[in-house]
Amino acid sequence: MSRYWSDIVSKLRPYIAGEQPRIPGLVKLNTNENPYGPSPKAIEAIRQATDDRLRLYPDPAATELREAIAARFGLTAEQVFVGNGSDEVLAHTFQALLNHDLPLLYPDVTYSFYPTYSLLYGVETIEIPLDDQFRMRLSDYDRPCGAIIIPNPNAPTGIGLPLAGIEALLAAHPDAVVVIDEAYVDFGGESAVPLISRYPNLLVIQTLSKSRSFAGLRVGFALGHRDLIEALVRVKDSFNSYPLDRLAQVGATAAIKDEAWFETCRRKIITSRENLVRELEALDFEVLPSQANFIFVRHASRPGVALQAALRERDVLIRRFAEPRISEFLRISIGTDAECARLVAALKEILAA
Amino acid sequence: MSRYWSDIVSKLRPYIAGEQPRIPGLVKLNTNENPYGPSPKAIEAIRQATDDRLRLYPDPAATELREAIAARFGLTAEQVFVGNGSDEVLAHTFQALLNHDLPLLYPDVTYSFYPTYSLLYGVETIEIPLDDQFRMRLSDYDRPCGAIIIPNPNAPTGIGLPLAGIEALLAAHPDAVVVIDEAYVDFGGESAVPLISRYPNLLVIQTLSKSRSFAGLRVGFALGHRDLIEALVRVKDSFNSYPLDRLAQVGATAAIKDEAWFETCRRKIITSRENLVRELEALDFEVLPSQANFIFVRHASRPGVALQAALRERDVLIRRFAEPRISEFLRISIGTDAECARLVAALKEILAA
Repeated sequence: MSRYWSDIVSKLRPYIAGEQPRIPGLVKLNTNENPYGPSPKAIEAIRQATDDRLRLYPDPAATELREAIAARFGLTAEQVFVGNGSDEVLAHTFQALLNHDLPLLYPDVTYSFYPTYSLLYGVETIEIPLDDQFRMRLSDYDRPCGAIIIPNPNAPTGIGLPLAGIEALLAAHPDAVVVIDEAYVDFGGESAVPLISRYPNLLVIQTLSKSRSFAGLRVGFALGHRDLIEALVRVKDSFNSYPLDRLAQVGATAAIKDEAWFETCRRKIITSRENLVRELEALDFEVLPSQANFIFVRHASRPGVALQAALRERDVLIRRFAEPRISEFLRISIGTDAECARLVAALKEILAA
Repeated sequence: MSRYWSDIVSKLRPYIAGEQPRIPGLVKLNTNENPYGPSPKAIEAIRQATDDRLRLYPDPAATELREAIAARFGLTAEQVFVGNGSDEVLAHTFQALLNHDLPLLYPDVTYSFYPTYSLLYGVETIEIPLDDQFRMRLSDYDRPCGAIIIPNPNAPTGIGLPLAGIEALLAAHPDAVVVIDEAYVDFGGESAVPLISRYPNLLVIQTLSKSRSFAGLRVGFALGHRDLIEALVRVKDSFNSYPLDRLAQVGATAAIKDEAWFETCRRKIITSRENLVRELEALDFEVLPSQANFIFVRHASRPGVALQAALRERDVLIRRFAEPRISEFLRISIGTDAECARLVAALKEILAA
């Protein structure tokens, strides 16, 4: 606290990202990174762009990238907004589209950045509890509200929603923006993108950090009616003209175009996830049904905090949230099969002790 | 305008960046880019980092980069904040440090992003007029205020302030944050960094876009007392955990360490500027005294708008601001000597017509 701070600063509860330790040999299953590298074509495109042209500003509108994303999803570039990671896209969305007289609704167990953004922009919120199986009951959202944001699949549970439910939500709230945060949708979820043409109140947010292996490059995007995109552009152009550097624009464009690489990697991860689920269930873990590149698991008898510590001693890093309802759960990112095997071996050792 | 927009959106006046056309052969002197490429060591460092590690999140605290900047300026890493271009650093500064009950003061002719940020964050402001020679009279800032932001050198005038004046301002306003925006300081200005140890109300903001030729990479930073830096970190961690991607962190670190390259490029630009000033004065231009990598000039008889259009016809791009007091001026970035010669040749042709 300092007399020089704006009032808002002491009210904030900054988001705490997962650890990014630099320990060789660590099995890092704590931040939902993709175990496979980005598209080799995207890597090559970045190398080709790494020269004296970096002295020049990037395209402030990221036109080529937006056109590539639009083509990939059957939209026009005016329906695409890009940002410096989907976290920046979400931040602009909270400021530009989710701040109304009526409250914003989101699940009580969800991406923990949502309450942080709400404090940052003074958005009034109501948390809608998940049911006992950590599922969303969409009927609970049938109440007066200014806007709704829902991750599909949800985080950190991994549980997905059927498209019919999302469509019903959009139809029930024609006056409210409904944001579907699809950071993890490519690992088995149903995307709401096909609904964009029919619902001007739908904004879909995705990221290149997970299914396209570019967590280190920071590119996310939003898809929706051009009026919603315009609001995001107006905020972006009041914040930072050039949020995406030249290399991020070039690499992301190539990654979006390399559909074959994307398809191969996401399928491998889905297969590894299904194998890991079976192995953990055999070790007495309850595993929530996941459509993501992570699983959310709770052991029948061992406390989550102890398991996390014991795994850490064995150089296996997973994530746990010390929050109401979920503090016994471990969130485990899906690694390579070799990494999953090391996790299982470590757990067997721990549980045998 | 849309019923889905938050109230703030329709109140914004987004900043309009200089054009980034892709026309081969264009002499591009409109956005103050460095005519020389970035440090070859920095280019090489980025290439070396362009591999599968991009699947992993970057260091959210950008520790190595902050340590390199701290070492360069004789500070500690806790006195350094980094962001995605100095525009992002400025945006966070407006929200975290410049929003008080009393108004923020800045010059009436200055970086035109300041009023934009003020609208975005609801900061009350008073613009303090420059004098008839476009100079700041620091005595005009001796009035009750919540904070002050001043570019040194100022933009788009290029006129610098002596350090003694800045120190007097800091001493006169011990309860107000004073931000010195030093985007252009390396081309002949006096930096306020040496005052940081004595003035806890001083924040200095710099960028790698100009003197370090990395406009395309997007890295800026703020230097100041750790309490001021903490406010920026709290806002940043409520907005985007990872604003700087892996390649930006690596490239910027190498660029900051390559003092020899920095020194060579900035000296060449200063020399080219002094030559260009003499040539333009000989063509009847009034040239404001510049300490930046651009000059702000007005012809004795030809209107600014006509000169800009005639230069554009000759493939020379410069910038003009259609604002009160300065609409007759052209802002010309300092290019290579060859580019400056093409500008002068084009002007001679235009003025002879």
